[in-house]
Amino acid sequence: MKKKLKLKVSAIKDGTVIDHIPAENLFKVILILGLDDFDNMITFGNNLDSGKLGSKAIIKVADKFFEDDEINKIALIAPNAKLNIIRDYEVAEKKNIKIPDEIKGIVKCFNPKCITNNEKITTRFKVVDHTPIALKCRYCEKLTLQDEIKMQ
Amino acid sequence: MKKKLKLKVSAIKDGTVIDHIPAENLFKVILILGLDDFDNMITFGNNLDSGKLGSKAIIKVADKFFEDDEINKIALIAPNAKLNIIRDYEVAEKKNIKIPDEIKGIVKCFNPKCITNNEKITTRFKVVDHTPIALKCRYCEKLTLQDEIKMQ
Repeated sequence: MKKKLKLKVSAIKDGTVIDHIPAENLFKVILILGLDDFDNMITFGNNLDSGKLGSKAIIKVADKFFEDDEINKIALIAPNAKLNIIRDYEVAEKKNIKIPDEIKGIVKCFNPKCITNNEKITTRFKVVDHTPIALKCRYCEKLTLQDEIKMQ
Repeated sequence: MKKKLKLKVSAIKDGTVIDHIPAENLFKVILILGLDDFDNMITFGNNLDSGKLGSKAIIKVADKFFEDDEINKIALIAPNAKLNIIRDYEVAEKKNIKIPDEIKGIVKCFNPKCITNNEKITTRFKVVDHTPIALKCRYCEKLTLQDEIKMQ
């Protein structure tokens, strides 16, 4: 029985494991990466025990290797997530999530008067600070700070 | 390696397994059951091979035993789903999903003039036919048929 207790979400042969996602943000990560509309085999685990995060989520996508651009989209909501690239059941590569220099979409501008909040325009921010995050809107130039980040 | 290939989503000690969910409806089932805001350990698998459905999804919720009322909410989008109640890693009980006699919320009334489409009122339907499904609105008395079912 011990083995079963340890193994919470099963292994994949080839693909990507995204680990150490904060449990409360699993579904946001799924939406941002478009995994709700995906044909590959996917397994998710949520509210798994994690020393670091209290409770964490994990995503395993078979036969999918994300581009850095794609995966870095989740940096704002899962900055401590770790990527494992799996080949033939073994971890072939480990990657960290990196906050990109520019964020397109995903986040709402904090300025209610910004054109992106009043017309159908995709938001664009320059990341002017990383810890804590500060995003400068390309349109209104106002800052959206870490605590003010809301998903679009 | 054979064992790993077979075991797509790991075992739970106690809880509920919802199997044979159509792959495209996994996230709707999650939302209807409120599993996106749940503290129990949950694992999901999607786009798993299934002879019957082509590809299926499965949900495993640790330490949760649903009431019939709760689980029957998913009847409209996963009518062939099967419930396994797990105790100490063994299937203790098997249940089928049953379309309830009444549906509250979840579905939109097909009649655009219905009050439920124009004011903030929870829809209520009497299930007047099961295969194919026909729902009679308690407010406008119009029928919403299987093919016309849209989630609220």
